[in-house]
Amino acid sequence: MGAGMVANLKAAGHELTLYNRSKEKAAALAADGIQIADSPAEAARSAEAIFTMLSDDHAVSEVVFGENGIADALRGGALHVSSSTISTALSRRLAEEHARRQQHFVSAPVFGRPEAAAGKKLIVTLAGSEEALKTAVPLADSIGRRSFVVGPEPWMANAVKLSGNFLIGSMLEALAEAFSLVEKSGVERQNFLEIMNELFGSPVYANYGKNIVDRKFDPPGFALKLGLKDIKLVLELSDEVMTAMPFASVVRDNLLSAMAHGQESMDWSSLSLVADRRAHLSTS
Amino acid sequence: MGAGMVANLKAAGHELTLYNRSKEKAAALAADGIQIADSPAEAARSAEAIFTMLSDDHAVSEVVFGENGIADALRGGALHVSSSTISTALSRRLAEEHARRQQHFVSAPVFGRPEAAAGKKLIVTLAGSEEALKTAVPLADSIGRRSFVVGPEPWMANAVKLSGNFLIGSMLEALAEAFSLVEKSGVERQNFLEIMNELFGSPVYANYGKNIVDRKFDPPGFALKLGLKDIKLVLELSDEVMTAMPFASVVRDNLLSAMAHGQESMDWSSLSLVADRRAHLSTS
Amino acid sequence: MGAGMVANLKAAGHELTLYNRSKEKAAALAADGIQIADSPAEAARSAEAIFTMLSDDHAVSEVVFGENGIADALRGGALHVSSSTISTALSRRLAEEHARRQQHFVSAPVFGRPEAAAGKKLIVTLAGSEEALKTAVPLADSIGRRSFVVGPEPWMANAVKLSGNFLIGSMLEALAEAFSLVEKSGVERQNFLEIMNELFGSPVYANYGKNIVDRKFDPPGFALKLGLKDIKLVLELSDEVMTAMPFASVVRDNLLSAMAHGQESMDWSSLSLVADRRAHLSTS
Amino acid sequence: MGAGMVANLKAAGHELTLYNRSKEKAAALAADGIQIADSPAEAARSAEAIFTMLSDDHAVSEVVFGENGIADALRGGALHVSSSTISTALSRRLAEEHARRQQHFVSAPVFGRPEAAAGKKLIVTLAGSEEALKTAVPLADSIGRRSFVVGPEPWMANAVKLSGNFLIGSMLEALAEAFSLVEKSGVERQNFLEIMNELFGSPVYANYGKNIVDRKFDPPGFALKLGLKDIKLVLELSDEVMTAMPFASVVRDNLLSAMAHGQESMDWSSLSLVADRRAHLSTS
Repeated sequence: MGAGMVANLKAAGHELTLYNRSKEKAAALAADGIQIADSPAEAARSAEAIFTMLSDDHAVSEVVFGENGIADALRGGALHVSSSTISTALSRRLAEEHARRQQHFVSAPVFGRPEAAAGKKLIVTLAGSEEALKTAVPLADSIGRRSFVVGPEPWMANAVKLSGNFLIGSMLEALAEAFSLVEKSGVERQNFLEIMNELFGSPVYANYGKNIVDRKFDPPGFALKLGLKDIKLVLELSDEVMTAMPFASVVRDNLLSAMAHGQESMDWSSLSLVADRRAHLSTS
Repeated sequence: MGAGMVANLKAAGHELTLYNRSKEKAAALAADGIQIADSPAEAARSAEAIFTMLSDDHAVSEVVFGENGIADALRGGALHVSSSTISTALSRRLAEEHARRQQHFVSAPVFGRPEAAAGKKLIVTLAGSEEALKTAVPLADSIGRRSFVVGPEPWMANAVKLSGNFLIGSMLEALAEAFSLVEKSGVERQNFLEIMNELFGSPVYANYGKNIVDRKFDPPGFALKLGLKDIKLVLELSDEVMTAMPFASVVRDNLLSAMAHGQESMDWSSLSLVADRRAHLSTS
Repeated sequence: MGAGMVANLKAAGHELTLYNRSKEKAAALAADGIQIADSPAEAARSAEAIFTMLSDDHAVSEVVFGENGIADALRGGALHVSSSTISTALSRRLAEEHARRQQHFVSAPVFGRPEAAAGKKLIVTLAGSEEALKTAVPLADSIGRRSFVVGPEPWMANAVKLSGNFLIGSMLEALAEAFSLVEKSGVERQNFLEIMNELFGSPVYANYGKNIVDRKFDPPGFALKLGLKDIKLVLELSDEVMTAMPFASVVRDNLLSAMAHGQESMDWSSLSLVADRRAHLSTS
Repeated sequence: MGAGMVANLKAAGHELTLYNRSKEKAAALAADGIQIADSPAEAARSAEAIFTMLSDDHAVSEVVFGENGIADALRGGALHVSSSTISTALSRRLAEEHARRQQHFVSAPVFGRPEAAAGKKLIVTLAGSEEALKTAVPLADSIGRRSFVVGPEPWMANAVKLSGNFLIGSMLEALAEAFSLVEKSGVERQNFLEIMNELFGSPVYANYGKNIVDRKFDPPGFALKLGLKDIKLVLELSDEVMTAMPFASVVRDNLLSAMAHGQESMDWSSLSLVADRRAHLSTS
């Protein structure tokens, strides 16, 4: 994801300093004029704004609050834009800690795969104070196709991102059940997909549906274990705001069954294999 | 639905005889040159092909097997095209009974609302014998935007139609849960819908999502009690082919709760009110 | 079941005439002084009261309304006691049809296995008019350990019986999940069962729990396909009275998965194998 | 809970030193010869064995690892018996930290209410090393009616305790659904309970069933928010060992709906109010 974002920020005329845990990846990104930092702190020190794009809560906590982390290096008045898909709880903690240091904080998770990042096609959801958003929105516009401001509290953007991923996960389970049903009714899966594409007219259904029809989950566009991580964050949020989510619970349970069957590194649309097994269909 | 189908069949150059239980509705449809029959039998007697489009299994059974019904009036070699959303069980019975009488039978349920029928925008799914389809497919092409043949057994088309409605019902429940979650997180429902429209790019999400955001379920595009009828048919099919469908079960349960709260005549997107009540949100 | 009931009715001093579809079974029951009838009608003709104990709705409909059935043979003022586990819908139809013929009708389904029937240990739930119950309750007392009157409408007794079977089915699913969880935590299943027996102090938990621990489901005490039949009747009832039942839905779905894996003739506690497969545990 | 345990340990002839956050409660317990400590550390310092019985993970972490905590005060070779219902994760951490200090650790959660503790009626589940159990089992025997050793790893006892609470929570949801169903069928709830008591023969069903029939949830035997805490720990465990638990998920969702309706301090059998609302029944 980072590569595409860097290229688009560069193209928008910004001067960039980059840190990546993997020196090789950083070096690959270090094209014309991009500085490479040795630590998050070094990248943050003189920045007006710093983006973080990492895999999970643990990685973000490390990079922000760990040794040579961002929090203690960033100047007062400077901005941290967190684009990772993290928990609302961590987002609230980031907001508090940055506020305590007179730093700005915006949560700006994105929808889209690495290809979308490269093609400036991301959807960016932002939340934060009005002042922080003044800097953040133009930056978001330079990495995505459309930016949405969703509220004054940074964690609200995380709530939206998690809710969106929940909708995708629910679509996967619904497709998994439907494909099992039509296959057991003697209908070709491909045939059913074409009809559903005509009905929904959505590239999200078309793309994931194709994986399920072909039972091709490798290489993963989004690994199943990351999907499970996100659904668990959805359930944590539902607990915080006291909202029952029966669909999210079904998706969680089926993702766990997928984990038990060794699917952690497959694409998360392999959730359909759980339905296949349950219905005693072939999984290949 | 029937009105649009009749107009388009007429426009395609067919000579039509029409029967409707309500004489007024029939009269309204009796435009230039359309014959009105006094019974299903009369409409069927001299027809090469007869369409039925009715609300449920009971109505179809009446019109086909009841007094002055189609089955005993239709000529050998003539075709019955059933476009109603009915059970796979009734579809199998229709296939058997027509075969016993040397009549052809095609099941051809459609996706689309009355407006789509009027605008020749229906999606038609067909199943039946090769010979029967030779007559049925051109007729389907004249009432819809696209026709899909899904298999040799008529009930397969019903399986596909029910599976499609299941996907829509699942989308409604997923949206209901997501909207509850974001509202309890302080995010505007309308705001979330715009982001999801950008993400899914689907008119089905956009249209139903708008109902849910506005909590406007009247007049119904598709009444909740009919949605429940369809989900129960999905569950019957899942029983026949032995396929667990946890999402269909959740949708059924929530539709039942909606029925208990008097929502039978609201649009079935009012499923979202069940999530609202569960989360102690306002339902207005 | 019938054998034990017959023996206890005989022991209570009643004169009995017996009909069974299998002549051999009837002959085996035809001990000292029990008449064997050639048809339900013959058994009913001179009876003051007639019990039916059959496997499902279909069998009861046949025996009551079919050729040489009970309904047209029973005298006015005589009583039909239906002890089968049937749908509330059929129970209502029986009540109407018997009323139309000035016959009495009581629904009196029982809890207990054949051994319980033999040992006069059944729990009998009865519903019907006051007058009909005057005859029925003493008969129930002679076949069971305890009789409960639950209401004036016969179908209410079926609602109670179905709800009781639902509680047992839910207990099975709960045990299935718990045993999977403890086994994956490295705890011996037998060990866990002993603790739960100490906690619940219930023979129902103890007996079914033992099946699950031993993964011994043959011969069945109650076949899984019959369990599924009952859970489907529960769901039909929940639909009639508009009550969501998420647990009943989960049990249905898992029983369907069991059916897809060929478990229809195993004991219905083999529901636990569905949890085992889902968790990737050995099922033997 | 602590009061009963203290009394029974005293009765078994042990010399006790007691610490409680609330000085008054400690003073009340400080009967004949029981020492009162000013901190967990003071209570632990000279002990051969120390019991902790606290409300949740947070409280246990504080008392063991916080300032003046047990971990750094307990002698090498001495034993910590943790009887709280805590997460398996914290149990593993306790095992590691005590091992690092050459201290023994046994997890020994209990089933039973304060009355059971007072009456020496607790069921104690223990797990730990053989050596640690040599000291712990006789202590467990002196506070409960029966002790069960479930494995060599302390967290296994927590897995068993959580699984037991899950079975009780599942029973509550099953009862909630069944009572809604029979009430909507016109059957008296009390009537149904008596039949179920005859069927299950379990005091657990009888006691919780009575709460549900009477809709009397105050004062709580076990507060709903604590029930939710335990079900969340069950779900965390199911995630650790990769086991889908659809029933646990349904219970979680319904407990969340209860929380949203202000039931956190009612008894957790008030889960039945969620079913009542869903079915549009009166909740009083």
